[in-house]
Amino acid sequence: MAVQTIAGNATTASVDLGPAVALSCRECGERFDLGPLFACASCFGPLEVAYDLPAGDPEALRKRIEAGPDNIWRYAPLLPVPADVADKPNLNPGFTKLVKADNLARELGVTGGLYVKDDSGNPTHSFKDRVVAIAVEAARAFGFTTLSCSSTGNLAGAVGAAAARAGLRSCVFIPHDLEQGKVVMAAVYGGELVGIEGNYDDVNRFCSELIGDPLGEGWGFVNVNLRPYYGEGSKTLAYEICEQLGWRLPDQIVIPIASGSQLTKIDKGFQELIRLGLVEDRPYKIFGAQAEGCSPVSAAFKAGHDVVRPQKPNTIAKSLAIGNPADGPYVLDIARRTGGAVEDVDDEQVVDAIKLLARTEGIFGETAGGVTVGVTKKLIEAGVIDPALTTVVLNTGDGLKTLDAVSATSQATATIKPSLDAFRAAGLASA
Amino acid sequence: MAVQTIAGNATTASVDLGPAVALSCRECGERFDLGPLFACASCFGPLEVAYDLPAGDPEALRKRIEAGPDNIWRYAPLLPVPADVADKPNLNPGFTKLVKADNLARELGVTGGLYVKDDSGNPTHSFKDRVVAIAVEAARAFGFTTLSCSSTGNLAGAVGAAAARAGLRSCVFIPHDLEQGKVVMAAVYGGELVGIEGNYDDVNRFCSELIGDPLGEGWGFVNVNLRPYYGEGSKTLAYEICEQLGWRLPDQIVIPIASGSQLTKIDKGFQELIRLGLVEDRPYKIFGAQAEGCSPVSAAFKAGHDVVRPQKPNTIAKSLAIGNPADGPYVLDIARRTGGAVEDVDDEQVVDAIKLLARTEGIFGETAGGVTVGVTKKLIEAGVIDPALTTVVLNTGDGLKTLDAVSATSQATATIKPSLDAFRAAGLASA
Repeated sequence: MAVQTIAGNATTASVDLGPAVALSCRECGERFDLGPLFACASCFGPLEVAYDLPAGDPEALRKRIEAGPDNIWRYAPLLPVPADVADKPNLNPGFTKLVKADNLARELGVTGGLYVKDDSGNPTHSFKDRVVAIAVEAARAFGFTTLSCSSTGNLAGAVGAAAARAGLRSCVFIPHDLEQGKVVMAAVYGGELVGIEGNYDDVNRFCSELIGDPLGEGWGFVNVNLRPYYGEGSKTLAYEICEQLGWRLPDQIVIPIASGSQLTKIDKGFQELIRLGLVEDRPYKIFGAQAEGCSPVSAAFKAGHDVVRPQKPNTIAKSLAIGNPADGPYVLDIARRTGGAVEDVDDEQVVDAIKLLARTEGIFGETAGGVTVGVTKKLIEAGVIDPALTTVVLNTGDGLKTLDAVSATSQATATIKPSLDAFRAAGLASA
Repeated sequence: MAVQTIAGNATTASVDLGPAVALSCRECGERFDLGPLFACASCFGPLEVAYDLPAGDPEALRKRIEAGPDNIWRYAPLLPVPADVADKPNLNPGFTKLVKADNLARELGVTGGLYVKDDSGNPTHSFKDRVVAIAVEAARAFGFTTLSCSSTGNLAGAVGAAAARAGLRSCVFIPHDLEQGKVVMAAVYGGELVGIEGNYDDVNRFCSELIGDPLGEGWGFVNVNLRPYYGEGSKTLAYEICEQLGWRLPDQIVIPIASGSQLTKIDKGFQELIRLGLVEDRPYKIFGAQAEGCSPVSAAFKAGHDVVRPQKPNTIAKSLAIGNPADGPYVLDIARRTGGAVEDVDDEQVVDAIKLLARTEGIFGETAGGVTVGVTKKLIEAGVIDPALTTVVLNTGDGLKTLDAVSATSQATATIKPSLDAFRAAGLASA
């Protein structure tokens, strides 16, 4: 095997990541060999996976996908993973429900078909399982033995669980004062969990230092040195939505924005399906959703700016609370190019939207789900989202992880003594 | 339409519940028309759904099932639901992952294949979604407009969510002093939630009173007057396990015991598949699992008794804490007939088993999952479960709902300052 040193701390053999052939810089286009790189050596732009995608008969590819497993590996021919990925120990996320939300559609006045892509059905109940699963394959390919990340919540659990199943060591870094529930969720999978005395920025800075140090040898940080691969996991949301709509692009889609990566990768996924002939090339609009308390991209969109001015987050939607979103400019570009928009809702609207989704469809979403449903409602009312067109709204996480957001307003209707008289007095019998 | 009064508080037309043709008494065999009945009018024995199951070509039935949706409705021909059930607004539970647990198998010394049937993947993250989905169809068939239950946890959320999606009113009864997290999960779906001043027994007594009173007119209590239908939902676990094993019975299966209903219905499901020719008729052993702090069935099994002596529950496995399990005698019968056993583990073993499953397979199970994994380990060590045979272990719920069980022992490995020196001193770098 020809062995080639790619980065400071990893040695890779001829890497088999399926159709992935290189990393290419999103800014200047320079290409690099596949490896644990994340920034362009020339211009420091972000690196993306470049593919040699299957050419030829779209019908054959469609059949191959449909015959695949009921998880993201059905799309292995379009992902940076080896062809035999489904046979390895993975959490096998994805192929979550695309729920036709007729009750919610009635409340919002949508007539063209409203769907909720519900990623709370993933193994650790957030979309993070998708991106981590791809990062695990990259870690294996590059010979990493420890899977790591900096996290304030969902990601820590997703990395811990995926590493346990894959037989990798894990070591996850969190701010030392994280809520107890999140600590437990991150620790239960038995990996190392390190509290850093500082805030999330301190954790991130420390992780960057560690990657450059011999101490970090053999470590794959899913959201740092494995980030180009990790990010590709979000493409599977695009693939699944189209396949579940009968190999058709939605007319409109509402996506939450944290770093903005997910939104850009969903657009990339749509473009790939068009190029491969798997869906008809029709216009679609992409809408980005933020919480008002952390709305740098929404603010830039409204002001007509091309750059994003960082904010200090202050919102209950903590999984979206990235004040300086790396992919913000790309999000602005996509929203404008597709004729979409970026909008935000305040925390009260987030809570109302979580409860609206639960009340109408029986889906208890995370605060991020409240953000997308709330923004959808707001943009319909403003006449920006067309209610006569097919619309998909993402719920990327589970309400069980953000119970605090709704606890004040989700309480018992009544408390009574165990007697029919008391029940009658409470006025709760059916009409 | 011929209208016929069936019970005190509901009127049913010619009911279409698919292949279900009658209710029959498990004790004396007397048959009754389909309706909201739950006890035999002659002997007070429990009523079960009797079917006219599809006769003829097993291969055709197998193909029909495999072409069905990726949820329990693929088995509609074997369930008390109308043929068009999949087109109605449902939460569409089921077809959860059957995880080949090779890491866990290695730790336990299982060589014949070890699988975890992981029902945390259901919409509200417990197996209750299965049984409630069937009860919703019965409620619709009988013209009920309010879906109800008594609950201390998982069931309340499952009923609230299912009713919301189905467009039914819900009113759920809970003990007034339930933990806040569980109250929020039950309330968020927007139905009525009534705290009863008393314990769970008081709640149940009150619900029985309400069913017999005009105040309860139009109310379907999933676990009382809809219980015969509700219980059938657990058969889908048997169907799925066999289909996911390639239409083959497991040699051994470990099932948690609360009321015991789930275990008896899984046995019923296996028997149906054999009778229909969908699986080969081979011996299988059913093992029941309880927590030591609520182990009336395990105690009766070990003592060689046919009846179950009630206990006062005291265990962290609250979803299994039924001290007087209605189906206890049937469970004993099945365990003995199949050559299985009933065993229990203490709370410390439950916690260890939750963490063992998380550490090996990345599955964070509920305390009930800790009970089944713990009992599996104990029975392998005792030479009762044969490690050379194919074994399936049920995880019926989600660890996110019982965080308290593991919080004391799932904490950060270390807390350090954000510096490489501090990290080096903590000794966590890879070898």
